[in-house]
This record gives sequence, C-alpha cells and structure tokens, in this order.
Amino acid sequence: MTIQATITPFNTFERVESRVRSYSRSFPKLFDKAKGATIYDMQGKAYTDFLAGCSTLNYGHNDKDLKAALIEYISNDGIAHGLDMFTDAKEHFLATFERLILRPRGMKHQLQFTGPTGANAVEAAMKLARKVTGRTNIIAFTNGFHGVTLGALAATGNGKHRGGAATPLTGVTRAAYDGYHGADINTADLLDRQLSDPSSGVDAPAAIIVETVQGEGGLNAASPGWLKQIEAIAKKHGALFIIDDIQAGCGRTGGFFSFDGMGLSPDIVTMAKSLSGMGLPLAVTLIKPEHDIWKPAEHNGTFRGNNHAFVTAAAALEKFWSDDRFAGDVADKANYLGQRLAAIADDHGLTTKGRGMMVGIDAGSGERAAAICKICFSKGLIIETSGSFDEVVKVLCPLTISLDQLTAGIDIMETAFEAVLGSHRAAAE
Amino acid sequence: MTIQATITPFNTFERVESRVRSYSRSFPKLFDKAKGATIYDMQGKAYTDFLAGCSTLNYGHNDKDLKAALIEYISNDGIAHGLDMFTDAKEHFLATFERLILRPRGMKHQLQFTGPTGANAVEAAMKLARKVTGRTNIIAFTNGFHGVTLGALAATGNGKHRGGAATPLTGVTRAAYDGYHGADINTADLLDRQLSDPSSGVDAPAAIIVETVQGEGGLNAASPGWLKQIEAIAKKHGALFIIDDIQAGCGRTGGFFSFDGMGLSPDIVTMAKSLSGMGLPLAVTLIKPEHDIWKPAEHNGTFRGNNHAFVTAAAALEKFWSDDRFAGDVADKANYLGQRLAAIADDHGLTTKGRGMMVGIDAGSGERAAAICKICFSKGLIIETSGSFDEVVKVLCPLTISLDQLTAGIDIMETAFEAVLGSHRAAAE
Amino acid sequence: MTIQATITPFNTFERVESRVRSYSRSFPKLFDKAKGATIYDMQGKAYTDFLAGCSTLNYGHNDKDLKAALIEYISNDGIAHGLDMFTDAKEHFLATFERLILRPRGMKHQLQFTGPTGANAVEAAMKLARKVTGRTNIIAFTNGFHGVTLGALAATGNGKHRGGAATPLTGVTRAAYDGYHGADINTADLLDRQLSDPSSGVDAPAAIIVETVQGEGGLNAASPGWLKQIEAIAKKHGALFIIDDIQAGCGRTGGFFSFDGMGLSPDIVTMAKSLSGMGLPLAVTLIKPEHDIWKPAEHNGTFRGNNHAFVTAAAALEKFWSDDRFAGDVADKANYLGQRLAAIADDHGLTTKGRGMMVGIDAGSGERAAAICKICFSKGLIIETSGSFDEVVKVLCPLTISLDQLTAGIDIMETAFEAVLGSHRAAAE
Amino acid sequence: MTIQATITPFNTFERVESRVRSYSRSFPKLFDKAKGATIYDMQGKAYTDFLAGCSTLNYGHNDKDLKAALIEYISNDGIAHGLDMFTDAKEHFLATFERLILRPRGMKHQLQFTGPTGANAVEAAMKLARKVTGRTNIIAFTNGFHGVTLGALAATGNGKHRGGAATPLTGVTRAAYDGYHGADINTADLLDRQLSDPSSGVDAPAAIIVETVQGEGGLNAASPGWLKQIEAIAKKHGALFIIDDIQAGCGRTGGFFSFDGMGLSPDIVTMAKSLSGMGLPLAVTLIKPEHDIWKPAEHNGTFRGNNHAFVTAAAALEKFWSDDRFAGDVADKANYLGQRLAAIADDHGLTTKGRGMMVGIDAGSGERAAAICKICFSKGLIIETSGSFDEVVKVLCPLTISLDQLTAGIDIMETAFEAVLGSHRAAAE
Repeated sequence: MTIQATITPFNTFERVESRVRSYSRSFPKLFDKAKGATIYDMQGKAYTDFLAGCSTLNYGHNDKDLKAALIEYISNDGIAHGLDMFTDAKEHFLATFERLILRPRGMKHQLQFTGPTGANAVEAAMKLARKVTGRTNIIAFTNGFHGVTLGALAATGNGKHRGGAATPLTGVTRAAYDGYHGADINTADLLDRQLSDPSSGVDAPAAIIVETVQGEGGLNAASPGWLKQIEAIAKKHGALFIIDDIQAGCGRTGGFFSFDGMGLSPDIVTMAKSLSGMGLPLAVTLIKPEHDIWKPAEHNGTFRGNNHAFVTAAAALEKFWSDDRFAGDVADKANYLGQRLAAIADDHGLTTKGRGMMVGIDAGSGERAAAICKICFSKGLIIETSGSFDEVVKVLCPLTISLDQLTAGIDIMETAFEAVLGSHRAAAE
Repeated sequence: MTIQATITPFNTFERVESRVRSYSRSFPKLFDKAKGATIYDMQGKAYTDFLAGCSTLNYGHNDKDLKAALIEYISNDGIAHGLDMFTDAKEHFLATFERLILRPRGMKHQLQFTGPTGANAVEAAMKLARKVTGRTNIIAFTNGFHGVTLGALAATGNGKHRGGAATPLTGVTRAAYDGYHGADINTADLLDRQLSDPSSGVDAPAAIIVETVQGEGGLNAASPGWLKQIEAIAKKHGALFIIDDIQAGCGRTGGFFSFDGMGLSPDIVTMAKSLSGMGLPLAVTLIKPEHDIWKPAEHNGTFRGNNHAFVTAAAALEKFWSDDRFAGDVADKANYLGQRLAAIADDHGLTTKGRGMMVGIDAGSGERAAAICKICFSKGLIIETSGSFDEVVKVLCPLTISLDQLTAGIDIMETAFEAVLGSHRAAAE
Repeated sequence: MTIQATITPFNTFERVESRVRSYSRSFPKLFDKAKGATIYDMQGKAYTDFLAGCSTLNYGHNDKDLKAALIEYISNDGIAHGLDMFTDAKEHFLATFERLILRPRGMKHQLQFTGPTGANAVEAAMKLARKVTGRTNIIAFTNGFHGVTLGALAATGNGKHRGGAATPLTGVTRAAYDGYHGADINTADLLDRQLSDPSSGVDAPAAIIVETVQGEGGLNAASPGWLKQIEAIAKKHGALFIIDDIQAGCGRTGGFFSFDGMGLSPDIVTMAKSLSGMGLPLAVTLIKPEHDIWKPAEHNGTFRGNNHAFVTAAAALEKFWSDDRFAGDVADKANYLGQRLAAIADDHGLTTKGRGMMVGIDAGSGERAAAICKICFSKGLIIETSGSFDEVVKVLCPLTISLDQLTAGIDIMETAFEAVLGSHRAAAE
Repeated sequence: MTIQATITPFNTFERVESRVRSYSRSFPKLFDKAKGATIYDMQGKAYTDFLAGCSTLNYGHNDKDLKAALIEYISNDGIAHGLDMFTDAKEHFLATFERLILRPRGMKHQLQFTGPTGANAVEAAMKLARKVTGRTNIIAFTNGFHGVTLGALAATGNGKHRGGAATPLTGVTRAAYDGYHGADINTADLLDRQLSDPSSGVDAPAAIIVETVQGEGGLNAASPGWLKQIEAIAKKHGALFIIDDIQAGCGRTGGFFSFDGMGLSPDIVTMAKSLSGMGLPLAVTLIKPEHDIWKPAEHNGTFRGNNHAFVTAAAALEKFWSDDRFAGDVADKANYLGQRLAAIADDHGLTTKGRGMMVGIDAGSGERAAAICKICFSKGLIIETSGSFDEVVKVLCPLTISLDQLTAGIDIMETAFEAVLGSHRAAAE
C-alpha cells in the first residue's frame, strides 16, 4: 500500500534521528532526486527550491558538467580522501582559484583548507587573528551568524544557537550592524567611538568579522560605505578585517565575492556553502600572506582535503567564473526578482530585505512568515524564513534557475502573501 | 620535461596554499589515484598506505562496491545536498545503521548528523552534555585528541593544537589516562577521589569523554576494566559517559565500535572518519534517547546532510557489517600485525602500543620515529608518527589490505627500524 | 640635616615598596597627620585635600566625634576583629543604618558585610545576581569603574586596569553610558534594542550595574531620566538593577545615596569608601530581601567584620544623617563649588563635569590636567585627575570643608588653570 | 528585662543582616569585649577563643602595646586613610618589616599593599604571575583556599564557595596536594609528569600557588621535601612559585613565615590575617624585585593604605619578632598542644592534623565534629571545624595564650570528644 510506503521511512526518522532535525519539520516529505532548481519527492512530485541548501546550491542541484566531472573522477579511482597531502585534484582547484578568482582581483591570499564546514573556516579565522595580533577580543555584529562550534558560536548572534552552548560564550564583543539603530545612527561611528576610548571597556580587538549581507540574521545588507568604514576602523585599531562570505559569496549577490567592486581588502575571507559547486562539504579560509603564520598542522581536521569537492569546485569555477556572462545573468535575474518582491511588499505595506539574489520580504512577524511559507510548500515551493523573529520570507533560489521557474516561484509567493495578508491593493481600491 | 611537470604543481601549493599544510611535508609527492591500500603519484609510482587518512579509509581507497553505489546515485540525480531534510539516502542509511549496528547491540541511541567533521560531533556532544546536566565542566584525558574547534580543542591535550587557539581554553578538567602514571597507579581511582571530595576544586562534571585507544596521543590503549571504572565513576557523579570513537571505531580495533564486547553503555558516542566508508565527510553523534533534548536546529550546520556519504556509508555497513566475516578477518590480520610489530620492537628493545589494527612501536624519540618513517616513504610506504613527542611509529593501514601487501609493508618497516636503530639482534649475538 | 631626614624615608619606599604605588608619584611628600580637610607633611606644611581618599573621607580626616568614639571603643577592649560573629558594635551599626538610612526611604534591603573593599562588594553583587537569575551576563557601562579583582575588573572599563589581568575578562557586556554617543543618541534605547532582539548576540543579563556618577571614568553624571529608563530595562528583561554607590554615595552628591529622590529602587546597592566615616576599610552590599538567597558563608572573607569601622560608621550616621542639616549644607557648598568651576571653565572655553560635590573641569587633555594639578600641589592643594585620558581635574574635597578653605582651594585651581591655559578672559578683552 | 535585652539585638541581625552570615550561627551570642585569648558576651560571660579570627589574632585580642600604639596614633591625628600616598606610618612599617623580617632571611621582596583582604593579595599575585610569564594557567591544589573573589575563587577548592560564583571559574588547573592520594603516591611527581608532557593538556603554568598548611582545607600540612619539589617543578617549567601564607604565616606554625627554615625561595608570598597584629584589615603581596613589573596603579584599591593597620603591624613586628623569644615560646606551646591532641586522638582511634599551632583532630565526620564544637561552646570554648566535610576540629588559639588557659581549653575539648565519641580508653579496659 502507498500509505505503508510513505509512513515507513518517516518512522525511521522518528525512531532513529535526533530531534535536533529542523528543515524536515517544515518540509515533511521524503525527497530523493534533484536537478537544477527542482527537488522531487518519492512520489515524483516536483518542488521548486527557493532554499537551495541555504545558498549552498547556487549552481543548482546536480549541474550536468559538475556531475560529469565528479563521476569521471570517481570512475578513474581519483583520490577521494587524502588528508592534506598534495593531490592532483587539489592542485587543479588551487590553480584554477588563483587564475580565475584571486589574480583578476589582485588578491594574494593563501588558501587554508579547514575542516569542510563554514564554522570550521570561521574558527580558523578567529584563531589566526588572535595569533597574529596577540589579542583575544573579536568584534562581531548583531544578527550575525558564523556557526555553532564554541568559538564561532561566540560570534553568532542568534539566541537559540547561543543557548545551545549551555556555557558562557567568551571572546567576542558585539557591535551594531549597519542600520541596526535606525537610519539616523551610523553604527560604525559608535564602534569607532568605543575603540578609540581607552576606558570604554571594549578591549582592543584582534579582528572585526562581518557578513556583507546577513543571511540568517534577516537579510540585512550593509552599505558599501559602512563596510569601508568598518574596514578602516579595523586598520586604525590594529585589528584584522574578516569578511565571512560563506552565505553571501559565490555569486549570490552578483560577484564571486559579495564585496566585489567595493574596494575592500579583507585580511581574511571565509568561504564554504557553494564553494564546491555541487553541495559537497568544502570550506576555505583565505589569508593575506603576511598573516599566514600558522605552524604546520596547528589547525587541522580529517576532512580538510575533500577531493571530490575539489573536482566539482574547480569545474564550477571554470564553468561559471571564466568570464562575465554568469555574473551578468545573475544581475538580470536579481533585478527581476527585486522588482517582483518590491511589488509584493508594496502591495502589503511591507519592506524588502537583502541584496542581489539574497533577498526577501519582512512579513512583519514570524507567524505570518511561517504561514506564507507553509502555503508556498503546499503549492510546490520550498522557501524558508530568516531574521530575529523568523519574520523574513527569504528567497535563496539557485542562481541558475530559469526565468520561467523563477517567475512561477515568485507567483506562488505572491499568492501566499495575499492568502495570509489579504489583498491590500484590492482593499485600498 | 618531467622535472617541469613535477615542479609546477608544487609551485602552486607554495604560492597558494597556507603554510598550515602538514602531511604534504612528510610525503612531498603529487598523488592522483588510489585503490585499496595503494596510492599512486603522478609518475605512477605506487605507495602502500599505512596511514589511510588517519583511519578514515578503513575499507581502503575507492572500494569498488561503494564507488559503484555512489556513481549510480550521482548518475540518477540523487540529492547531493539537502540540509537536514528527509532524503531517501538518509533514510536508507539510518535504517541500515539501526538494523546492523544498533539493534544487534541493544542500543537505542538517536543519530544526530552534525557538521561532517569529528570536531563538530564532539562539539555537539559537549554542548548536549552541558545542557542535559546543567553543569559546564567536562573531564577529558591526558593525550586525548578531540578536534581543534574551540570547544573540542579544550578537550584536546596536544600543546601545539592548544596553542593555536591563542586564547585560554576553558570548560575542561584534565584527568590522567589509563597507565599515565605507571602500572602501579590506577588513574581512575585518582579521578574518583577528586570527584568524591567536595573541596577538591574539580567541579562536578557534565561528562567524561574518553577514547578507548588514543590515536593521536600515542596509541595508548585503555583496558576494559579501566573503562568500566570510568563509566561507573561518570554514573556515580551524575556525569554523562562519552566515548569518542572517531578514530578507533568502524572496525579499527576489531568490532564496529571500539568498545564492543566490553559491557559499556556510553550515553553519547561520536563517530566520523571511516563512517562514510569512502573517505567522504560524515559525522554523527549517537545519543541515548533520554538525553536527546535538543531543540530543533539548536545545533546545526550546512553540511549535516551529506547524502553522498549516506550512500557510501550504508553500502559500507551492508558490505562489511552484515555478518561477522569482516570482523574475523580484521582480528586475524591484527593478530599477525601484532606479532610482527612485537618482534620488531623486541629486536630493538622497544615496546609496542595500541590495540587491534591501531598499533605501533614506540621508537624512543621523535627524531628516530621521523627517520624511520622517512626511510619507509623512500621505499614506498606511507606511514606516520603519533604521541606526545611524535615518538610512536603508527600503523593505520586499511583493514581490507591483503596479507601480502600488509606483509610487504611491515617488511619495509622492519628494514627501516634496523637502518635507524641498528641490528640489535645481530649486535647481541 | 633636613636633607637626610627627607631622603631616608623615600629610600625606604624605593627599596621596599612595589612600583605599583601611584598617588605617591603625584604627591611626593611624606605625610603624617591630617585633620578635617588638611593634610600635613613631616615638615609641618599643610595641604588642602581636594582628593579626600577618592571620596573616602567625605566627613574629613579624623573627625573629632568619630575619633573619640573609636578611641573609647579601643580603650574599653571593644572587639576589633570577630569574623562575622554577632558583636555589639555591629548590632549598633545595623540598627542605626536601618533607623536613619533604610526606614526613612522605605528600603528593606539586607546588609551583607563583604570583605572590606569596594571591589569585594561588587564581586558579591555580581555573584548574587548570577545566582538569583541563573544567567551569567552582566551589563556594565563605558568608563565604569568597579574594582580590579577579576570579577569586578570585567565590569571596569579602564584599559590599564583591564590589561593588568593579563587574561581575558569575561561575563560582562559593555553598554554606552548616558551621553556617551552625544546628546542626540539615547544610549538606553540602544541597550533596550539589543536586549529586545533575541538574535542581537547580547545574552539575557543577570544584572545591569551602573554608577550614577562615574568617579574614575571622568565625572560623567547620568540623568535621572536615563537611570529610570535603565532600571525599567533591567526589570523588563529580568535582570537585577545594581547601583554601585561606592564613590558617589555617602553624601558626595547630596543625599546619603547618590540616587536619593530619583524614584529608583535598585535590587542591589554596593557601598564602601566613606561608609566607615573615618577612612577605615568597610564595605556592604545591600540586597533586597527576595534576592538574599546566599547560603551561609557562601561568600565570605576574614575582615568582613571590621568592628572599628562599625563604631565610626555608626557615629558618622548619627552625626551627619539624623537630620537634614548636613545634606543642606552640602547642597549649599555644591552650589558654590559648581558656580566657581563653571566660571573657571567658562574663562577657558572648557566644560564642567559631575554632580554635587563630585565635580570637575574637563581640561581638554591629560597633559593639561596633569600640569594644572602639579601647580596646585606646589601651592598646597592636593587634587587629582579622572577620565579616559586623565583629562578631568576632579574636586573631591571633604564635604565638611569650611567655606573659607573651599574658597582658597578653588582660588588655587583658578590660578593653576590660568597658568596652564592662559588668561582667556584677558585675551578676549 | 534580660530577655528583652538579649532578644532585641538578635532581631536586628535577623531583620537587617544578610543570611550569608555564618559564624554567628555556631556561636549565637552577642559579644562586646575581648582581651588576649578571651571574648566576653554582653552578659559578661567569658569564652576562650580557639578560633582567633581564623588565625587573624595570633597575638590575641587587644594586645596592650598594640592598642596603646594605635590610640596614641589616633589621638595625635595620625593619618587614617591616605590611599597609597607616602605616610610616616607606612614608612615605619616598611622599614620595620625590612629590618626584622626580610633582611634576616636574605629576602629582597618588594611589598605591594593590595586591597586589605587576603583575596585581594591573591588576586594581585595571580595577575602579576600572568603578566610576568605571558601565560594564563595557574596550578592550585586540592582543598586549597585562596579567597572568594572571582580570580582567587578559581584557585579555591571548596565546592560551596565555588558554587557561589554561579558562573564557570577559569584559569586554574587543579593538582593533588601532598598526601592527597595516600602515602604511596608522590603527588608532586604526578604534577611534574603532566607538565613535562607537551600533550598532557595541562597548559604551561604562569604560577603554582600553594599553602604550606591548608587551614580551611582540613589542616593538611605539606612536608618540606614536597614543597621543595613543587618549587623545583615551578622553576623547571618556567612558572612562578607562590606561597599563600595568609593563614599559616605570622608565627602560626612557628616562624614568621610558615616556610621558614625550609630553604624555599618563593617568587611571591601573600600575607594578610595576622599581619596587622590586632585584627585590622591589611594585606600585602611580597614580590621578588625582578617580577615587580606593575605599572603604577595597575592593580589598585581604595583601602590599600590602611594606616591604623600599619601602626599596629609595625608595633607587632617590634614586639614579637625582634628576637627569637616569641618563636621559641610558640614552639613550646605547639609541642604541648600537639602532645595533648595526639593523646585525645589516640584515645578515640583518630588522627591529628596540621603543624605548629595550626593543628586539629580529624573527628571522622562533620556531624561528630559539629557536635564536639557545640559542646565546647556550651562550656565556654569557641572552636571551629575545617576540611572537605568539616570533619576536623581545629585549634587556632592566639599564640600568646597562657599555658593555663590553653590547658583549660584543651581539657574542654577532651571532655567534648569523650561526650560525643565515648570513652574508648575506658571501653578498652
């Protein structure tokens, strides 16, 4: 019986998987296949994926070229796991990253392959900043998200995650993100004031770590001017400037780095999520050469050499970043997406959030946002919330999504907003 | 020219990779393929792998069945990355793990998929123990290794790694491992004495975390009796008993768990390394149901659902753990390996370390051990050191290695020991 | 010879006292006697004391009635030291404090006799707030000073003192004091914003600790409205409201408590400095009954029962606080002092700081302020600086000073300001 | 009415004093006068004081010469409070301390006047050791007591006090005191083993802090040989050697320092309790000149110049330490006291603890010890307990006690032991 068939696997999860599981609660279906911007459940029902692994699948599910490269590599007995030994796949990735990403930007950063999670890349960045400066305090921002291992978690703002530590989190001073205290207050000035005052009680920082767009924190997007000022404050006070580009990087906001074109020169950049191109675990910490003072193996990790990910990552760089076409395409889609969301927001007296293809609508409350997402899912759209109160409906679709599928997804969103919030336009007329 | 060919890629690493890299310094070759217990460099030279990803490749490189399962999965557009949504691959892994591993042992643990690194599994375990007990102190042991993210690093003993934090590590009290103070002192008694004394200054612990064999710490193997006593001490003092089975598990010491057959019932078990079977990043924290009090997503991580790894992990369980043959085979090899190492050690007045297929010889100093490993590598054997002073030559070959290749590898070791230490037997005669 | 006579004792200090000594560097004379607002050096030269033990000698040196009470007590073999046993002197102090201070204000606080230092009273307050709430984070303010023991030091803003810890200070989040970011920004709103946001990264606080006037931090005086708002924020977010009244209390700003008449109801008040009336070590932590959840001796200290100090403290309460005359007298002097300082400040385009008899002039730089104080000392006036850059010339004379001596002291200040800054009034004419 | 008279003051304490009070629970009488080894309650009843302010009153209550010196000083308007300015009283104390204590021992230590509590002296010592070495870890011992402010509390072993922090205590690693693991285990060897192992997980220490006799921890007395070894271990591993002589110093164990005659040369010594001679708050941290790297005021505190205490402290040094008579007298009494306690212990199959005039009997349980002390109090003897379970009946009488009063006190103890434990000798016959 089909009922039996669908119930059994759920029972497995109920029986064997920890209750820490989360997304499966919003999307209680059993999925098996995925291609591009579409995920399929076991009954063959297709869902458009506006979540995309929280920006891990910027190039979509199972891109045919990445897939082919990976299958070929495996078929040829390419090394899957080699700790951090020299492998052909790693060399190819490094050379490609240097050629297509670093050199065109005049960047001379060294790549540290950390454990293949964003949190690990952040941990490495924080440790290194402390080593380099001999200071321990790190400035992180309200609503920032940097991971949940104990070092990174201290920099993360989210209260639920912080509470999971069940012990005090130390080593981080919180500063207010761009716009946090309203349009009239330049929060960078507040930070500079404190760091310039030897009796402020804010210790001289080892680093300032910032996301250019806060993915988990509510799609707050910092202005280039504010980021420039934060970078200047870091330099002025002898701190390293770290950009956590884990969620906003890899094209999500347009360029390969979310800070492309802003004239910034971060001392350290953390990357993960879409870096492997295909959703495979991979993370790097980019370090300016003068700060690369690690002793061999001082920060290590078994899976710091995920060679499958090197293969797909190099293929992704080659496919999407060897010229400007992909970036241009993303810009066009972002433009369309932005206009559509602005219209929906306008209809309901709401505001949009974010930048590039990392945008959403502040629905006004977590309850509303949850209701909207639930309706979307019932109509075949996977979409999630973000923000302090989960009040932002967030679009993180694959950047490679077709315009038709993007349009159809947004249409579902529009319907869901109307279903939950009523037709304001109609009401007004 | 071949010279050019070999030099160029090294230049890439020199130019672009952080100096934190380590194993590539011991084995300065460029590798591209691997099969079973053999790795090949770009010139096609074959090396026997007695390192095996530090016990990540217990089933060897590119096992044909795991490889086939993975290629089929990818070819069919199986989901690569799905955050922690329900997927067919995950369900299949969970059900297989339950059927082949948990049920036969009467274990009812829940599986938490943490970020796919051992450190992350340990972080989750430590956080959860603190949540469950409302205490913050965790007992870890001398020479223990549990990862380098800030929470796990506090539990790690290695001074170089600890120094990498560049900030004080907190929340862990150090206890002496089995045998640490010599054969006459039962270190479990020392710990119990301190925990039983309300004025000892050792705060009531949330957990005691222990490796049954300390892989990085010098292949120190705890006796079953000592482990039983540590478990009893944990229970007596209201602490959770955590076994970190990341390196010693998955058959390395014989059974699937390194503690199989010891009558232990750990509250939490951490696993990673060989869990995926093929070297892909995967980690789980096994939690007794009564301790699984996580809120949804309280501990999360982008790559906690590495579906490729679920596929190979399930295939590995099916292939190696559906009956006793593999374990029996490992036991035979371990027996042979142990005898050979004992003979070598005996020749030079040295001692062996470890248990099962996680064994080595204390060469007496780090310099000697390094010299031995260097000779081995020149003769086509990849082998590394372990211990406080890197003084232990450590054998972590694939468990699936053929007896011929195992023998050949040990023969190289024997030669290298003689080359460095002289032929004691000869001298004595 | 007089030269020999003056040099010898200095040699003793040079030889035997730690270089941590500080005030003796500003006032390099050997003093032996003191009466009222006057200190005498060994040559019999008189100095007017505008430092008064940093507000520890609000009733002047060796007040005749306090002195008489103490001599009588000692002569009669009154208990000097009794740990925290019940003594007649303690009972008398408690009953007097209750009758003259607590009851008239409708306060029901319990008195905890901590170790007899302000820092210890603050440590007790912080520990208790954490016990009561089960939270660890404590909000303290920019430029706050609360002592230099490790717990209190975390709440102290001064960088030099913080650096003395030589280890990271934890458990405190820094907020901006009233006016810290200029007149246009209500810093209480900034704090409330962060505490109201579950993802701000500022953990729910156990307490907010504040000085109504920051004595060491530059004589910054908070407005009653801001303090009321801070108290409301504490209550709103489940935190205890702690006023550190160690320097500003005991009449320094007019009332016995610096917050008298503001309608505040702090959960905990810390007191020390002038509490004993005669400069003897004494500190108390006042605790609302519902928060007094200490176990017996949970916070202890050998000198928590300084009975000599109980005797003089009770006598001081009786003499100065049994009616309104003293407070009225202080108000008159504060009025005169304020006008004189305003005139001096106005002459030089400077601003005054502080409130009541805890006032000063921001000289614009630490160099200027030091030069002014040095001239004052050469003219027989002991006066010190305060502030992030030691830029504030601070008046903390005994509250009992005669109008004549006060006038003469201010006259010296006026001369010193002119000597250092020139005669602006003259220049303008 | 007498009933009214005795009840009223108790009501005051009940109403107004925090429940943290402790000794008043064991000795619920209201005391007013004290002389030598005798305290009197308000009804004039005399009690022999075998507690002596926990060793703060080594020279007895209100010694006539100290009292006379203090009264004269106050009568002449001697400075009571002068922050850390140069005063005649301080100079006299420093010169006397140098002449009578430091020079005869060849010590060149500098005196830092910290806040006048033992805890503050310990905080200063810990901070300075961290500054000097650039390390943060401090080794402290099981059952050690060093104070309850947050820094010192981390070094204190007692669980109740530690729990009062309500936040994790950091920066201290616990080692086992001499004899802690029984006579067969040299705990200094255990510590050396851990510090010599770079992977032990015990970070290189800034200091080792130790009491020669653990006053609060159960009168555990370290052997000179063990202390020498601990000092050697500190030096070997680059750590400062700190002796906390707050309770055991000032003649309590015979010499002025508890380590006199042991050939030790501690880098830092902390002193408080009996230092002032008369029970007035005073504390110093003695620092070898090469470690006295404080910046001016880096560690400060309002009451660091308690001039009344300087007066009595200098007088006490002059009276008791200008020749060997006092030390000889203490040795004689200690001999007598030791024999009597040994006899009592022997009668009941118990063991004695401690050294010099800091001795007691392990009654076997806290209940027994409490019962014994209660009986003693009912017979006019004030005596308290010590140890992890408050199981040690502890004699800390004034060192100046007459042999008659000492004998009478011990007789009461003997009776109380028999009352609680029965007459074993009788039973055996």
